[in-house]
Amino acid sequence: MSRAALLLLSLAALPATAQAPGALMPLPVQLRWDPGALPLDSTLTARLVAGPDDRLERGLARALGRLGRRIGQRVATGAGTDPAARLVVTVASPGQAVQTPDEDESYDLRITPERIELTAPTTVGALRGLETLLQLVAPAPGGFQLPAATITDRPRFRWRGLLLDTSRHFMPPAVVKRTLDGMAVVKLNVLHWHLSDDQGFRVESLRHPRLHQAGSDGLYYTQQELREIVAYARDRGIRVVPEFDIPGHATSWFVGYPEFASAPGPYTIERRFGVFEPTFDPTREETYAFIDSFIGETTTLFPDPYWHIGGDEVDPTQWNQNPRIQRFRRTRNLRDNEALQAHFNERLGRILTKYHRRMVGWDEILHSTLPSGTVIQSWRGTEYLGQAARQGLRGILSAPYYLDHMRTAAEVYVVDPLPTGLKLSAEEEANILGAEACMWAEQVGAETVDSRIWPRMAALAERFWSAASVRDVPDMYRRLSQVSLELERVGLTQEGHTARMLRQLTGRRDNPLLEALLTATMPPSFGQRAQLQRPIQSTPLTRLVDAARPDPWLRSRLEQQARRVVADPAGAVEARAELQGAFAGWQTLGAAIRALADTVPLAADGIPAAVAMGELGRLGQEALDRRGAGGSDGAWGAAALARLDSLAQPQGLLRLAGVDAVRTLVRGTP
Amino acid sequence: MSRAALLLLSLAALPATAQAPGALMPLPVQLRWDPGALPLDSTLTARLVAGPDDRLERGLARALGRLGRRIGQRVATGAGTDPAARLVVTVASPGQAVQTPDEDESYDLRITPERIELTAPTTVGALRGLETLLQLVAPAPGGFQLPAATITDRPRFRWRGLLLDTSRHFMPPAVVKRTLDGMAVVKLNVLHWHLSDDQGFRVESLRHPRLHQAGSDGLYYTQQELREIVAYARDRGIRVVPEFDIPGHATSWFVGYPEFASAPGPYTIERRFGVFEPTFDPTREETYAFIDSFIGETTTLFPDPYWHIGGDEVDPTQWNQNPRIQRFRRTRNLRDNEALQAHFNERLGRILTKYHRRMVGWDEILHSTLPSGTVIQSWRGTEYLGQAARQGLRGILSAPYYLDHMRTAAEVYVVDPLPTGLKLSAEEEANILGAEACMWAEQVGAETVDSRIWPRMAALAERFWSAASVRDVPDMYRRLSQVSLELERVGLTQEGHTARMLRQLTGRRDNPLLEALLTATMPPSFGQRAQLQRPIQSTPLTRLVDAARPDPWLRSRLEQQARRVVADPAGAVEARAELQGAFAGWQTLGAAIRALADTVPLAADGIPAAVAMGELGRLGQEALDRRGAGGSDGAWGAAALARLDSLAQPQGLLRLAGVDAVRTLVRGTP
Repeated sequence: MSRAALLLLSLAALPATAQAPGALMPLPVQLRWDPGALPLDSTLTARLVAGPDDRLERGLARALGRLGRRIGQRVATGAGTDPAARLVVTVASPGQAVQTPDEDESYDLRITPERIELTAPTTVGALRGLETLLQLVAPAPGGFQLPAATITDRPRFRWRGLLLDTSRHFMPPAVVKRTLDGMAVVKLNVLHWHLSDDQGFRVESLRHPRLHQAGSDGLYYTQQELREIVAYARDRGIRVVPEFDIPGHATSWFVGYPEFASAPGPYTIERRFGVFEPTFDPTREETYAFIDSFIGETTTLFPDPYWHIGGDEVDPTQWNQNPRIQRFRRTRNLRDNEALQAHFNERLGRILTKYHRRMVGWDEILHSTLPSGTVIQSWRGTEYLGQAARQGLRGILSAPYYLDHMRTAAEVYVVDPLPTGLKLSAEEEANILGAEACMWAEQVGAETVDSRIWPRMAALAERFWSAASVRDVPDMYRRLSQVSLELERVGLTQEGHTARMLRQLTGRRDNPLLEALLTATMPPSFGQRAQLQRPIQSTPLTRLVDAARPDPWLRSRLEQQARRVVADPAGAVEARAELQGAFAGWQTLGAAIRALADTVPLAADGIPAAVAMGELGRLGQEALDRRGAGGSDGAWGAAALARLDSLAQPQGLLRLAGVDAVRTLVRGTP
Repeated sequence: MSRAALLLLSLAALPATAQAPGALMPLPVQLRWDPGALPLDSTLTARLVAGPDDRLERGLARALGRLGRRIGQRVATGAGTDPAARLVVTVASPGQAVQTPDEDESYDLRITPERIELTAPTTVGALRGLETLLQLVAPAPGGFQLPAATITDRPRFRWRGLLLDTSRHFMPPAVVKRTLDGMAVVKLNVLHWHLSDDQGFRVESLRHPRLHQAGSDGLYYTQQELREIVAYARDRGIRVVPEFDIPGHATSWFVGYPEFASAPGPYTIERRFGVFEPTFDPTREETYAFIDSFIGETTTLFPDPYWHIGGDEVDPTQWNQNPRIQRFRRTRNLRDNEALQAHFNERLGRILTKYHRRMVGWDEILHSTLPSGTVIQSWRGTEYLGQAARQGLRGILSAPYYLDHMRTAAEVYVVDPLPTGLKLSAEEEANILGAEACMWAEQVGAETVDSRIWPRMAALAERFWSAASVRDVPDMYRRLSQVSLELERVGLTQEGHTARMLRQLTGRRDNPLLEALLTATMPPSFGQRAQLQRPIQSTPLTRLVDAARPDPWLRSRLEQQARRVVADPAGAVEARAELQGAFAGWQTLGAAIRALADTVPLAADGIPAAVAMGELGRLGQEALDRRGAGGSDGAWGAAALARLDSLAQPQGLLRLAGVDAVRTLVRGTP
């Protein structure tokens, strides 16, 4: 393939990024565009109308710094009393000292050609409004401007979270901080920080130092770092809910303290991924004294009123094989191991209450004996959310929002945190606090995590904040494309991810062929990759699959073009041409990638996908021809759909992103 | 311009990155390629033959981790006694507890098709050898390999440094750490850390907390962070020499402690750049008691035997205007302010001796009274290096190596740290310890610093390590291009810099036109930019000039092609075609960038350069035509050279990288 052809192929993959105003994400509750615009330059100054509030001042300074970097000119923070200030931020109260789900996050933003007025009942509301303001910055002839607008906004759900697993692969503080910066951009308010698991204990404990000394490979957060990160989050209106997963998923605790496990040990840090036997011994008072002491220590680090106990996937082996534990069960009339775990949780609950913390746990902890303040995080299925709500417990939904399942932004975006199928009363619905997306890190490291979370997380942030009726997928992608660039401005790395990983993988500065491959391929789901590659903790995450994006822009672009063709087979000329170009390019990839692999060893990973893309391209072209001809598809269509199901399976470690578009063409219905 | 044409234009800018073995930088003293190669895969294990040495173990683990990420397969650290280990690292001694310039950094590396033997007298030598080994990894059919080779290596100079200014713009710890990682890749051994200046005091002081509290805007390194960074450097065989610049460049000290200045104050952090009046009062005993206490505190953080006092650019205003200081001078018979500064330095010298530290200072401190262990860092000119050496003082050369002067890699590469013009005896030459490149940060921030240091610094690292006779510029560029990718693998960001900055600047994912502009333009020198833009500390560094590279690859590429044409006007067909392509493309840029600026406001910065590139392209084409015709140039040549001198000046804030190539064509001599 010629160099120029390759370039065109990879270029075709990139959608033009629209410059229209209104790249807001999440969309506000009410938005009215008004006539005119306010010009932005270094003459803009800001004024705070608020009580003394360091957090608000820092937040405003950060926002003005970002504004200045955006327009390439200094924007001064301005004197507090400047009557000529054109940005006036009025805040009634600094808000809760320790933020809870009840914090008021609403704000009003009014932009006229002369002035910007941001008004909020709390500092957190003002921080949300400043993000909206920054998203409105638009180019203008000779400079930048803010379109005149009137916005009233507040979140639909009060718990809008992201779980970050830092146990399976450690994420340095800088990664956690830039994740928080990204969360702030899209108005998320909970970092659920998964801090321990079989593969690593990531928190420095002064009371029980063998936890981090023996259980972390030296990769842990010092107490100073934890305090800094919690403060960093609070500065952005984000709560930090720590999770220490017990009684299972606990191997790393027992490396230093084997005496609290249900079998004698010794233990080493688990390097594989899965569900493992080591489990806390729920029958010994020493266990609870130890946990009590540890929780007491962590509550000095994590002020949040919630504390996540994990509680998922308890392997019963150690309990079943320990005669003393079996005896304990019998003497206490605990029917089964679930009842034993409920007993454990009940003891935990009492400890947490002593430290003024509410319990959060995965849906396995659901049990009739749970205290009413408990929060159930539903991961195995939406039904547990309903069960909890009916039982009067609070709930947050995660089951549909696992980022490592590698669903597309569109797939996760359309799933509402309040599933209609649950048939809850209004009172029961009120128990549902919100939702969390989960970034488990078995197959993700510090180098790749941004590309797995972002920009998909921004679409979910809109789902958790905006009205249920906001669900126009093409418009979501249009705005997501812009917001992803704003996320890069605060330090996230997903935009340059593929190019950077390819340079490192090939040792070449310029990788048009592999770029072309990765514009139209995606990583497999967590389960598929676990089965195909069986990675362990030290498996390098530097292969083509790690350079791939979960939802490359070309996927939604081609799918939209396919819908246009199907809706108007004779008329959609541009859409047809774009599809044809992609399909033709794909048919040349197999041979080209095969040749490349002669000198670039790791390119060989891409051969199966490249070959399959050739077939997909031919199938797509055929479907396109048939759409033009308008004939009946009959047997051809059925065979093509079956073939597409097969092509939708992982090819090597990559999935073909073009299957959706071709399926639309074959089906012939948009 | 069509999209495809644009792409071709920007592609032409990228040299093919050679895959030949031998992308070593710095080049070793002795290198012999042997027949065959050792295949690399996950069956490789390593064995240490050494006494107990945590630093060596960590270094080996890091190297194997990088090797594994490079080849996409796990490489186990292996058991210490594994007789089948194919990588055997033999180290005689852990080396100096506190590294000095006398540390032995030599190593021998022997690679056969069966085995790798790395032998070094010290751990630091072994670390250097591991970097060489990693640079030798090469693709092979179906995988990776190490070419068989025999290498003997040791540095030419024992002080090979990089100054990092973290005062003018703060660089977060993660930036400092990745800078150290890059330094280790190219075998540099001194981080000269500029920690205080008028614009910020960056070190937490427990004894004198108003230093960082009042003098840093909250942007400082905690003592814990400093200790971590010093340990991180030591792990990589890098010394950390702290610089606290006194008695001038000291405004930030006086914000919290105005009583030690030579005028009453109060003081605020300086936001402009330049030379300012605030200067320590050298006449008061309290000044020395304070400095003694501060040095005493910092020596617990920085174990290095050297301590840099700065001493440059003392503005005499405060001393001249203070009657008490004038009186002091008279009563002590101090002839002038230089003598007064010498008195100050003498007192400093006594304090440093008490804390077992040797003094390093900028060449202004040169004075007959300096103790013999003092090190003079020459920045104003090479002559001070000679003067110091003749005086029996040690010297390090920085004058030619200022990275903010934006010289090309080629320009700095050919300047030897031992200038022949100095006419030193062998004994005097031995006083020259080595050299340091300087990254001053007036016009550089955390986001842009990597792109300013790297990859040029790698070429300088070779100058400081390898033989003086190693000076083949095209070969240097060939290897630099590869090493730059290795530097990205350890976390540096220069490779993706321009694309990332352009996305943020334009709000567009895809910027072929501006990419094309920046493949052939460069930032102006420090002095030019200071004059043209007058930046202050809060000026956003997010303009086109900040996205530009100091030495874009196309510059040396076109210059080489021009030499080929000149050497063989009739024969160099490919070189001629490549130049023609570039010149033709440039002639379309002015109109295209002007049009782009209608919707991308900050693109307007590029209009003057784009227009000038059009003229340069026309001139280049004319010169090319004349080279083909073989006629006499006469008056045309003189006029063209004059025009080139003018085109070499900044156009807006950009300089044209193609001037060198066109000048070669006009001159007609390679």
